[in-house]
Amino acid sequence: MKNNKIKIVTIGGGSSYTPELIEGFIKRKDELPIKEIWLVDIEDGKEKLEIVGNLARRMVKEAGLDWEVHLTLDRRAALKDADFVSTQLRVGLLDARIKDERIPLSHGMLGQETNGAGGMFKAFRTIPVILGIVEDMKELCPNAWLVNFTNPAGMVTEAVLKYGNYNKVVGLCNVPIMHTIKESEMLGKNPEELFFHYAGLNHYHWHRVYDKEGNELTLDIINEMFNGDNKVVENISGIKFMEEQIRDLEMLPCAYHRYYYMHDDMLHEELEEFKNNNTRAEKVKRVEAELFELYKDPNLKVKPEQLNQRGGAHYSDAACEIISSIHNDKRSIMVVDTRNNGAVTDLPYDSAVEISSYITGSGPKPITFGKFNAAARGQIQLMKAMEELTIEAAVTGDYGKALQAFTINPMVPAGTVAREVLNELLIAHKDYLPQFKDSIEKIEEGKLK
Amino acid sequence: MKNNKIKIVTIGGGSSYTPELIEGFIKRKDELPIKEIWLVDIEDGKEKLEIVGNLARRMVKEAGLDWEVHLTLDRRAALKDADFVSTQLRVGLLDARIKDERIPLSHGMLGQETNGAGGMFKAFRTIPVILGIVEDMKELCPNAWLVNFTNPAGMVTEAVLKYGNYNKVVGLCNVPIMHTIKESEMLGKNPEELFFHYAGLNHYHWHRVYDKEGNELTLDIINEMFNGDNKVVENISGIKFMEEQIRDLEMLPCAYHRYYYMHDDMLHEELEEFKNNNTRAEKVKRVEAELFELYKDPNLKVKPEQLNQRGGAHYSDAACEIISSIHNDKRSIMVVDTRNNGAVTDLPYDSAVEISSYITGSGPKPITFGKFNAAARGQIQLMKAMEELTIEAAVTGDYGKALQAFTINPMVPAGTVAREVLNELLIAHKDYLPQFKDSIEKIEEGKLK
Amino acid sequence: MKNNKIKIVTIGGGSSYTPELIEGFIKRKDELPIKEIWLVDIEDGKEKLEIVGNLARRMVKEAGLDWEVHLTLDRRAALKDADFVSTQLRVGLLDARIKDERIPLSHGMLGQETNGAGGMFKAFRTIPVILGIVEDMKELCPNAWLVNFTNPAGMVTEAVLKYGNYNKVVGLCNVPIMHTIKESEMLGKNPEELFFHYAGLNHYHWHRVYDKEGNELTLDIINEMFNGDNKVVENISGIKFMEEQIRDLEMLPCAYHRYYYMHDDMLHEELEEFKNNNTRAEKVKRVEAELFELYKDPNLKVKPEQLNQRGGAHYSDAACEIISSIHNDKRSIMVVDTRNNGAVTDLPYDSAVEISSYITGSGPKPITFGKFNAAARGQIQLMKAMEELTIEAAVTGDYGKALQAFTINPMVPAGTVAREVLNELLIAHKDYLPQFKDSIEKIEEGKLK
Amino acid sequence: MKNNKIKIVTIGGGSSYTPELIEGFIKRKDELPIKEIWLVDIEDGKEKLEIVGNLARRMVKEAGLDWEVHLTLDRRAALKDADFVSTQLRVGLLDARIKDERIPLSHGMLGQETNGAGGMFKAFRTIPVILGIVEDMKELCPNAWLVNFTNPAGMVTEAVLKYGNYNKVVGLCNVPIMHTIKESEMLGKNPEELFFHYAGLNHYHWHRVYDKEGNELTLDIINEMFNGDNKVVENISGIKFMEEQIRDLEMLPCAYHRYYYMHDDMLHEELEEFKNNNTRAEKVKRVEAELFELYKDPNLKVKPEQLNQRGGAHYSDAACEIISSIHNDKRSIMVVDTRNNGAVTDLPYDSAVEISSYITGSGPKPITFGKFNAAARGQIQLMKAMEELTIEAAVTGDYGKALQAFTINPMVPAGTVAREVLNELLIAHKDYLPQFKDSIEKIEEGKLK
Repeated sequence: MKNNKIKIVTIGGGSSYTPELIEGFIKRKDELPIKEIWLVDIEDGKEKLEIVGNLARRMVKEAGLDWEVHLTLDRRAALKDADFVSTQLRVGLLDARIKDERIPLSHGMLGQETNGAGGMFKAFRTIPVILGIVEDMKELCPNAWLVNFTNPAGMVTEAVLKYGNYNKVVGLCNVPIMHTIKESEMLGKNPEELFFHYAGLNHYHWHRVYDKEGNELTLDIINEMFNGDNKVVENISGIKFMEEQIRDLEMLPCAYHRYYYMHDDMLHEELEEFKNNNTRAEKVKRVEAELFELYKDPNLKVKPEQLNQRGGAHYSDAACEIISSIHNDKRSIMVVDTRNNGAVTDLPYDSAVEISSYITGSGPKPITFGKFNAAARGQIQLMKAMEELTIEAAVTGDYGKALQAFTINPMVPAGTVAREVLNELLIAHKDYLPQFKDSIEKIEEGKLK
Repeated sequence: MKNNKIKIVTIGGGSSYTPELIEGFIKRKDELPIKEIWLVDIEDGKEKLEIVGNLARRMVKEAGLDWEVHLTLDRRAALKDADFVSTQLRVGLLDARIKDERIPLSHGMLGQETNGAGGMFKAFRTIPVILGIVEDMKELCPNAWLVNFTNPAGMVTEAVLKYGNYNKVVGLCNVPIMHTIKESEMLGKNPEELFFHYAGLNHYHWHRVYDKEGNELTLDIINEMFNGDNKVVENISGIKFMEEQIRDLEMLPCAYHRYYYMHDDMLHEELEEFKNNNTRAEKVKRVEAELFELYKDPNLKVKPEQLNQRGGAHYSDAACEIISSIHNDKRSIMVVDTRNNGAVTDLPYDSAVEISSYITGSGPKPITFGKFNAAARGQIQLMKAMEELTIEAAVTGDYGKALQAFTINPMVPAGTVAREVLNELLIAHKDYLPQFKDSIEKIEEGKLK
Repeated sequence: MKNNKIKIVTIGGGSSYTPELIEGFIKRKDELPIKEIWLVDIEDGKEKLEIVGNLARRMVKEAGLDWEVHLTLDRRAALKDADFVSTQLRVGLLDARIKDERIPLSHGMLGQETNGAGGMFKAFRTIPVILGIVEDMKELCPNAWLVNFTNPAGMVTEAVLKYGNYNKVVGLCNVPIMHTIKESEMLGKNPEELFFHYAGLNHYHWHRVYDKEGNELTLDIINEMFNGDNKVVENISGIKFMEEQIRDLEMLPCAYHRYYYMHDDMLHEELEEFKNNNTRAEKVKRVEAELFELYKDPNLKVKPEQLNQRGGAHYSDAACEIISSIHNDKRSIMVVDTRNNGAVTDLPYDSAVEISSYITGSGPKPITFGKFNAAARGQIQLMKAMEELTIEAAVTGDYGKALQAFTINPMVPAGTVAREVLNELLIAHKDYLPQFKDSIEKIEEGKLK
Repeated sequence: MKNNKIKIVTIGGGSSYTPELIEGFIKRKDELPIKEIWLVDIEDGKEKLEIVGNLARRMVKEAGLDWEVHLTLDRRAALKDADFVSTQLRVGLLDARIKDERIPLSHGMLGQETNGAGGMFKAFRTIPVILGIVEDMKELCPNAWLVNFTNPAGMVTEAVLKYGNYNKVVGLCNVPIMHTIKESEMLGKNPEELFFHYAGLNHYHWHRVYDKEGNELTLDIINEMFNGDNKVVENISGIKFMEEQIRDLEMLPCAYHRYYYMHDDMLHEELEEFKNNNTRAEKVKRVEAELFELYKDPNLKVKPEQLNQRGGAHYSDAACEIISSIHNDKRSIMVVDTRNNGAVTDLPYDSAVEISSYITGSGPKPITFGKFNAAARGQIQLMKAMEELTIEAAVTGDYGKALQAFTINPMVPAGTVAREVLNELLIAHKDYLPQFKDSIEKIEEGKLK
């Protein structure tokens, strides 16, 4: 372990997840020599920042630690000389997510936080903000690691690598962790007894599983999947996959593959929720309101149990673990978003992938996964192309590029309807899409239809 | 030109296209030293073979040629010592095509001869028959070229290369020819004045266009596309593409790209036709009945004008041209389905592509096209993977593989509905799908649902 | 054919090759509507420019043509509005080539115009000059084609593409032409009756040969090679290849492969010539002196027969042919140096290759060659890497890069001796290597040894 | 740790290295639940097997262990139900190695155990024997891991993967270990404090080094290399590399790179040794004779210190470590020869590479290294092609293939001299080259020269 005390900055510090993050740091107090934690938010998030920031302070105090917890709206002051910067911001807050879900559904197409039309708009809103943070980091803390768990985490990571030209970035997601926990349970084993080999893209990866004796257990888990229940993460339906298709795949899908493998079924389920004003975003908004009520209680000095029901469990803990793994050169395996470098043969060398990686003091070193079979290969190559177009549209504000991304996204029905949804979303989110200003004006003037 | 007289065998000789083929040979009588033409069909096609075969004989006689025109149901007798074998068969005849179109549409998904669920079933029915022909060829005419224009022409070509292990195969389609003619007209030029560079897959390719002075005219044609009408081939709707998306593509799409770029719009148009019992297959069946009535007329001694309305114009002429180009080492450019060999960097080296090729006596040499941009790359990589799975399912009869192909095909909504349509099509076509016998029985017994 | 009259500029116009170039234009007078030919040279070449330029004028006049033949030392005046620029310059003239050959040989290593230590130094001297011409062209004739036949033609082409960022460049060599002529003769055929498929790098390519009937004749030519004589080009020894190795290769080597496949034997032959002051450069210098004596004769009005003995026969004719093929959109096949674009799968996508290409008005379109077998693949990948390093060293003047290129060049024995030869050549050529000024000074001061 | 007791078989058990191997097992007695160790040798090695086998028994007894140590000439009896098979055999013993070194040197070319002409002949003799072992393993212990440290370890591993179709194979070498130890010392650090990232081929790899803080120390080590001494392994000269070339490389070379980067200097050093009958093989033969004298001493019950001078220190220990790492799913990093799978982008996907790998119960998972710069890329691609040809020649006995491998090997001067050395080595080793029987007869009859 290194001696120097470290400074950690969390952008979007007013998030409801912050207590899990603080808990994660406290759990690692013996391995992370923290001096300062800076929780940063914007004017619109000031109230939440105060609430959750004060809870964070109570938690740190309760743990008997002398860490400084700073709450600020001044991002640049916070970033100065930081060692690690984590980003957990949500541009436009949950109201924007509600639009990402409801507008596509109102046209009969799937709406989802990170997939389809909604996911692309989350990228359009988020990527320019993250690139702004990266510009500040280059100036104020050029040796800091950026630990991103803002969705869409894979596209954000690729944007930072390609357009931010910043290499010390790692993206994170809780889905691999959830699969590891759930499938270990299925097999009656501890996760440590198994080797999970993940590869793919954020929210679009597969894995294979091996035991200590070297046996591949992938098929055993597939068998279990079609015996027991299928639900892995809180925020995705537990609808069953089709058995023969998964067996043909010869790998384990992730929970999000339901949107692609069971698209039609998922759509019908979501349309039902849409009618009942009960889309995921709407549920989450209610849960968050309750959480902030809890957080206000001055007697609350630990992370409340209810946060685990929020849907992003293990996210913040993963962020703490990657910070500790890099800081301490832990040489453990984590699943992260990082530059491909050939680890996934079928994807471009310079793209971001989500992959089991060996974490060292110099960052993640992806473990070679090799070639996919045709079914996985074709789909992931399409998804990566869609990501590339989406990122480019997010950076440039080019309308044709955005329409192209909509056209090839397998969750968006191609054609006039795609264009209508694109236009409606551009208008709905216009406050957060300065790069698309010209196109939005043309739409409003009826010149782009 | 070589001296030896040649023997040409046409499998599916009873097709309504045969008069165009015969006309094509007659037009090339000075460059093609034909001795025998064998028109082969199966018992079910015997009547049509007689009708069209007799017309063929009248056409040859009218042209003052001494070519022998043989009509036979004995494929092996025909293949013996052939120089060129062309395949234009349709397993299950137009009734099968009607099912390929109507069954998917009855579930609200696009049905089409070569795309989506219907196209995959055409592959399932056709590939085993073609591989059987190839086995006969290896024995009876191992130096003959197989000129395939049976759809799906790209998948058939790849199946012959990979599973038939037969290299002297070339696939053909009339779509590039139609684009070349139409777009030359748009520019007010002769096709010979322009260089059309095509690359992609059968019914899924793009092209760029250059004039003799070396200027790229791709953008000029895009401009024209959004001024004038868009219709290129008889059998595909002329619905307009979305301008900004095509401009972003920076290449010209083919007519079939409408199914992918304007999917939702095309679906609605087809659903209307479905309701009116007027799908393309139903129309074609009516046209063909009329054609055969015409063909019966003993006074008809040339290809009737009405055939040009049939939808496959230039198909058979292309077959004659490739036969002449190979036989005469013509060194001209044609767009054919052939082994990739790196010409399309983004697709597997050993796969079949449809590409502008230099035609020599030793076959087509594809002209390097290079890398696609992200939008084209992602989609074509998905399509190729779908083709690989479809071909493998066609060869093996593996149900999981077929379901996988359905799952990743962008024209099939993934999930339970895909499985229902798969099962319904398997039952509907069971007479032509011996390789799927076991799975079909299970479906019928309610064991696969 | 286009209407506009064209302006052709030849840099290095004082070359002894110029009469072949002029003859080539005259032969094509009906297809090339030439208005002006500008022969450009530098102060040091002024006398030769006058001699050969006047011969050129006599040749044009003798042919009854009204073309203007301008002789000038003002490159920028010449380039203004040019349509085609050909480069046939030799930085440092033949005296530099003598050093390229004799200095390596004095250390017991092969010295050659385009291979080994000498070839790398020719690149070091030439590339900066060509890049200077390209900068002028971007300003003065940005639509002109650069037709380069200055050696090393492949590296020069790659430098123009990568560092000059100029796409309208094509490199040429006479070796493929010589092989085509020689091997057609071996088979008793006309070149037009055969399809020669070449691929590789300049002076490092292989080919396969097919007849009009589609038979591959590669093996037939190998058989002939080991029956008859082996000599293909004037400037390379006719020493026999090793039969079993060539048979294992399953392709035909080029004449220059002797330096790599028969290295030790070639070295011994060259050392003998070195002792006798009869290296190729020394011979050529004598031949050139004789040629210029001939050229002075005011009665000489055609290309003298003796030039054909010079060693570069067909070079200039190829330049004329590529100019005509591009200008007239001839759609013929020529072997040129052009951007790979995947045509040679085993080499980097963006590198220059020498390959059979379809020549259109928009330039050469390489015909896909595909993968090499291991023997060819490994060597050409090494050679390409060496070329990349050499070009980078030529552009940057980086000593370590130059030493690296020497280290991996298979014609240079690695180690201290390589460094000694590198240093000696840097000193010897210092007038033509401004980019290496700092390193040369250090060598002279004994600081780099 | 697993419960079952394990059976380890060592082929070439009579090797002088066996005491290090036994010591390695004894050191790991708490993690390796050994039941039986079988030392296998052939008739010619019987005496050595007895001597070293009895020492092994004394060592085990001295350590207070109940392991059975079997000595046998019956390979199949030994292999039955083995868990791990290690191979440390030397076909033809040290006398063959002496020929591998002296015959090339007698023609003025480098002779070396694993490089150049000698190394290729070691492959020719060894690969068929190893493939025979693999055939036995498939039958008798199909789940056993083959741990190969017979040289050339990389080519042997590739042969087992490609021609043996056996996946549970791992190759080992001590060179990376020696570099890790030496360079850690240079930096005044423990190896555990650093991350060494190796990639390349056996005896032809490079590495980069990072500290726990994430700083790359590669350049620091290069600086040290040119300050202090350069010697890393006993068996390779400590001659200095050229500083500018190594700096340009931006990676650390391995000791064996001297044969390629300093070829000429190494050759002169070896020619001196050749004259003095003091080549490495001759030295080793003397050392081994002394070692066996020591081993005979019934009072010797531990590995004698002198073995550490033998040159292969850490080899056997690495074998014990990989066995333990796989058996115990240790999840540590080791440098092994394994299937590439894209880890080294520039080499064929299915080839064997030597690379830092994460060792699990299901074998090594290579850590992605990515692309090399041009200098490293070109050379390693050539070396891999040479390896492929050598392996194919070893398997098929094809003379042309062997001559091709000689032609492209950068340590063999191409041409007639290569052929002479090839022929002389074929004759010299004919007892161990049954696959080349026909060619050897032709050489002896003067029909191949």
